[in-house]
Parts: sequence; C-alpha cells; structure tokens
Amino acid sequence: MSKKIPHKLIQQRSNCPIATALDVVGDKWTLLLIRDIGLLNKHRNKDFQEAREGIPTNILANRLKQLVERGLLEKQLYQEHPPRYEYHLTESGKGMLPVVKAMAKWAAHHVEGVEIPKGIGKR
Amino acid sequence: MSKKIPHKLIQQRSNCPIATALDVVGDKWTLLLIRDIGLLNKHRNKDFQEAREGIPTNILANRLKQLVERGLLEKQLYQEHPPRYEYHLTESGKGMLPVVKAMAKWAAHHVEGVEIPKGIGKR
Repeated sequence: MSKKIPHKLIQQRSNCPIATALDVVGDKWTLLLIRDIGLLNKHRNKDFQEAREGIPTNILANRLKQLVERGLLEKQLYQEHPPRYEYHLTESGKGMLPVVKAMAKWAAHHVEGVEIPKGIGKR
Repeated sequence: MSKKIPHKLIQQRSNCPIATALDVVGDKWTLLLIRDIGLLNKHRNKDFQEAREGIPTNILANRLKQLVERGLLEKQLYQEHPPRYEYHLTESGKGMLPVVKAMAKWAAHHVEGVEIPKGIGKR
C-alpha cells in the first residue's frame, strides 16, 4: 500500500469518495495522460503532445505537475543535459486504470462510431 | 440496447473511447449528478442543490440539460402547475455507474480520510 494522498494536496468539496476522485481527475485532460502512460506506453512530454486530442502545452505542464505532487505519477530522469524526465504511473496512478477502462467501455457501448481499439481492451 | 448518442451531440476531440467519455463527463460536476440519481436516490432539482458539494445553480441547469440531450438522463413530469421534472438514469446513464464506483474505490484506497459510505459499496 502506497502512502495516501494528504488532504492538503486536494481542494476537496466534500469527503465523498466520488467527489474527491473528481477533485483529482475531474477535467477533460488528466485521465488522458493516465491513458497515454498506462495503456499506450507513452512516457515523455513529446509523446503527450503528439496525442490526437491536442493537449495545450500549458495544460500539459500543469496536469503533469499536479499528478506528480499528488503521487499518481513519478518522474524519472532520462537525460541529464538538459534535464528531461519520463513519467510513470505509481500504484495510486495505476488505481485509476479501472476508471479509464470503464469510461472506454461506456463510450464503445453508447456513442455512435466509437470502438475500443484492439489490444487496449485486454490490458 | 438503447440508441447510441449521435456524434453531433458531442464535441469529440478524437474517436478514442476514453477521450469521448471525457467529452461527455470530463468535468467536476456531471458525475456527481449521476451519483446523486443512481446511488443516492435523488431525482429533483432541490435534492441536487442540497448536495454537500454546493453545485452552482447555473451549472446544475446546464449539466441536467446536456445529460438529457445526450440521453444519459430522462425527465419525468411530476407536477403540472408549474411544471416540474424528476430526472432518472437511462440505460446509457446507468452505464456510467461503473465509472463512478471505480472512482469511489480509488479515492477510498488512495486519499487520506476518505471512506466509502456504508450501503453505497454494495450497490
């Protein structure tokens, strides 16, 4: 069991677990980074910027910082000059994969023309 | 199987199922309404306004309208003068409950002081 996220790092609207999860990942972009890292094996800034959804760079930087601070991601130095980092899921970050997969399943069932790409569904 | 949501009702950033689900519920409030209706047995405007998170009334009205348009909720008239409606989950709306439950599980495991209230976990 990894250390739990302390209250002070999340602006909680209530102590409801659903509301709390949404205080962490309740926006259009954060869970796409969890997808990129956990399901699509992308780990570097350049990879995230290349995703089809076109995440704005300022939002990307903000979300990566938040996810590291809150312990869902960890940074690993892969180049020293200039310093560059890869991002990997922690145990807490991996804990979001069932959320992401449940979303994929919903959209594949309920939105026209959406399918789960081969390979993703099985992980 | 209910009718699928047509593309034109969602501003899709890509046809990835995860991104598409986030185009529908990727904000801090929408899934709280799914929680209220599907898990807490709340169905009326007044009930939603009383939730501890304090949803602003303009956001509440907007999210209810979007969820009805996109077929996750259906309205039922419960009073004629003046007309007032209750909101219920459709099949598509019920399809979001696994997402909500996975979020609850994540927060209960990974955030300090958060627990799944008795009764909710079993549904």
